[in-house]
Amino acid sequence: MNDVVSLKARRDRALGAGAALFYETPLHIVRGEGAYLFDADGRRYVDMYNNVPCVGHANPKVAEAMARQQATLNTHSRYLHEGVIDFAERLAALHGPQIESVVFSCSGTEANEVALRMARFATGRRGIVCTNATYHGNSELVGALTHVGSRQPETAEIHAFPFPESYRPIEDGLSEQALCDAYLERLADAIARFEASRVGFAALIVCSIFANEGLPRVPAGFMARAAEMARSAGGLVIADEVQAGYCRTGRWWGYEVTGFTPDIVVTGKPMGNGLPLAATAASRALVETFRTKTRYFNTFASSPLQAAVGMAVLDEIEDKALGENAAAVGAPLKAALTQRKGVWEAIGDVRGEGLFIGVEMVKDDPARAPDAPLAVAMANRLKNKGFLTSNAGAFANVVKIRPPLVFSHGDGEAFLAAFDQAVDELQAERRHG
Amino acid sequence: MNDVVSLKARRDRALGAGAALFYETPLHIVRGEGAYLFDADGRRYVDMYNNVPCVGHANPKVAEAMARQQATLNTHSRYLHEGVIDFAERLAALHGPQIESVVFSCSGTEANEVALRMARFATGRRGIVCTNATYHGNSELVGALTHVGSRQPETAEIHAFPFPESYRPIEDGLSEQALCDAYLERLADAIARFEASRVGFAALIVCSIFANEGLPRVPAGFMARAAEMARSAGGLVIADEVQAGYCRTGRWWGYEVTGFTPDIVVTGKPMGNGLPLAATAASRALVETFRTKTRYFNTFASSPLQAAVGMAVLDEIEDKALGENAAAVGAPLKAALTQRKGVWEAIGDVRGEGLFIGVEMVKDDPARAPDAPLAVAMANRLKNKGFLTSNAGAFANVVKIRPPLVFSHGDGEAFLAAFDQAVDELQAERRHG
Repeated sequence: MNDVVSLKARRDRALGAGAALFYETPLHIVRGEGAYLFDADGRRYVDMYNNVPCVGHANPKVAEAMARQQATLNTHSRYLHEGVIDFAERLAALHGPQIESVVFSCSGTEANEVALRMARFATGRRGIVCTNATYHGNSELVGALTHVGSRQPETAEIHAFPFPESYRPIEDGLSEQALCDAYLERLADAIARFEASRVGFAALIVCSIFANEGLPRVPAGFMARAAEMARSAGGLVIADEVQAGYCRTGRWWGYEVTGFTPDIVVTGKPMGNGLPLAATAASRALVETFRTKTRYFNTFASSPLQAAVGMAVLDEIEDKALGENAAAVGAPLKAALTQRKGVWEAIGDVRGEGLFIGVEMVKDDPARAPDAPLAVAMANRLKNKGFLTSNAGAFANVVKIRPPLVFSHGDGEAFLAAFDQAVDELQAERRHG
Repeated sequence: MNDVVSLKARRDRALGAGAALFYETPLHIVRGEGAYLFDADGRRYVDMYNNVPCVGHANPKVAEAMARQQATLNTHSRYLHEGVIDFAERLAALHGPQIESVVFSCSGTEANEVALRMARFATGRRGIVCTNATYHGNSELVGALTHVGSRQPETAEIHAFPFPESYRPIEDGLSEQALCDAYLERLADAIARFEASRVGFAALIVCSIFANEGLPRVPAGFMARAAEMARSAGGLVIADEVQAGYCRTGRWWGYEVTGFTPDIVVTGKPMGNGLPLAATAASRALVETFRTKTRYFNTFASSPLQAAVGMAVLDEIEDKALGENAAAVGAPLKAALTQRKGVWEAIGDVRGEGLFIGVEMVKDDPARAPDAPLAVAMANRLKNKGFLTSNAGAFANVVKIRPPLVFSHGDGEAFLAAFDQAVDELQAERRHG
């Protein structure tokens, strides 16, 4: 504890107070292995949160590939390097034929910057439509899309539409089909307002599974029709797969889950198992227009190091069938959590696919109002029991479960036991508080 | 050759044509060691260009630190980690007492984004003054500062002033003091136009040694007075040390060479010897205002991996006295190149400090007009002789010499011999062409 207090004070000065830390009492983590993290006292935590170390904390094959390449060659991209080309080809081949070429960068923010600018150059228009509870990154351009946590005012160049969901629909009492139509109308309106202005419509950008929105159950067919609508209006469709992609849902890409075909795909977090690595993939024509207009160069990107590590991560995902693991381990975990809905009325909904599950915490009132403090309390209590989650969603009331893809059935069962204990304790406190 | 042609064709598809490559015939580099790069045929090149691998290509201590940390722990920054704090403290201590806290990121672009936004939040104003031949990065916000290569129109929020120089001064026949005053007047004008508009003046941003401008000889006292002027107008002074810093000039920071005290310091390229790593350092108050306003979080930044590698790079610089090496090896190299001015009139000027030297190529006319094609021809010829340089500067006519800091006297002497041969050959071609 002293250790944590003194480290926190040093950190507040070195990084500035306000640099976010998880949990009421922050964790001092010193080691990782597979799906586990260990604190300075040697206590083991099951990591239910981190999607970056997708093939496992301290994965030895990734560490080896990283060490080997760094000890051989690591330069910028203005020399030919076969590894970089191999990696770009392999990455593009993971999508449909519309995706041919790749622009590498160092973060999801940078990759989303590239995507937005690519769409603007290609269309000659500037209007971007996003959802009203999204987050795509931290630069000035990409940060202007942030609507989760701080509902920004609409700008001349950014319009938000309500994210599609069935749990708190924009209109009550509609059939799924009618609800889908209602959301599409709102999207059409956001696009139309660009068309009415001189800004014009350039692109629709969404996280393919609406992760920051809280993993909503999307009305069937919504995304296919939304993509069609965007393209009919002359815009491009950007799939932000930073959270959704790389087998997180049990499928390679989130757009397979929600059922649409993107023009531009953005990937990031899990690509390098912790090495800064991101990519924007699109047709060759889109990429070449972008390159011609910007002469884009990114010092650390498209490097032999990024390529070697990126290939090792893809090898591990394939060799260990981690997509299949995400589906096989995630499905029973979600089913078991769904059963808990009946046990405690505060568990309003359980959603998600594969190893990305959200448990929505609600108040005990007819409106089932979001209960963010309860989600925070759950995360803190689970952490004390050795399981690391966090809270997220449009109302910050969703317990976010997103472990490394090497997470096992046994880990899931241990988590369920801790979850049930946490629920029991919180229920007991409420009865006696 | 076939190898290069077929790789280039694959690359044009995988990365999109227009992804820049150096030299008339691109190099296929497969290995590096210290100051040397090796192509697929085993040919050795002396690297006179790359500042990112500052402690040497494939530096074993850096590779070891990277491998060790990646095999131990590499997470995001919302857990406490002592290594990250140690690194931030060590980095801040390399500056004066005004620099206390650090925001880590993954690229110079991201770090400059942070710096510009930090200045805007702190001042409540938006106007940024940069030079008319600068480059600070590739995002929409930072890219709007780009004036080298493409002289962008002034915007409401970005004003450019002519970069200070003595070789092609804005006015002829002035004393150094009067020339300094003339440049300061232009800076004052750029600031005043913000003050006259509702935009207001937020910050002056410069590369501390004006690297992209072509390493100009800055009139004595200019930067100290420019910084004072910016602060008197209520703005902040941002030193972009991405190229200038980390002992490149023989001193730790470029601002020591041009003589000013920045409020915000941006570092990048050499920090991680190839690992994506950058930082924005400032007073704790500036950093905390930024963190409060933005809740900035950068997934891959402030990681144990960045910290371990960043510390290893600092250790190597100190243990091997690479700053002293840059000064000791750079000075005679610059002196020897300066002697060549008398030998060939096409060598108009030789400038720089430490291991960052520019050789300005000019036409044989009274105006000494910039000769970019000649600088390109020099770089290609030197490459064919086994020495890798490039061309840069406001007119792209400066042969850019910026080797890893482990570059030796012997490397410099070998380069001078190749330089003389290249000059002889180009002179002979001109006589017979």
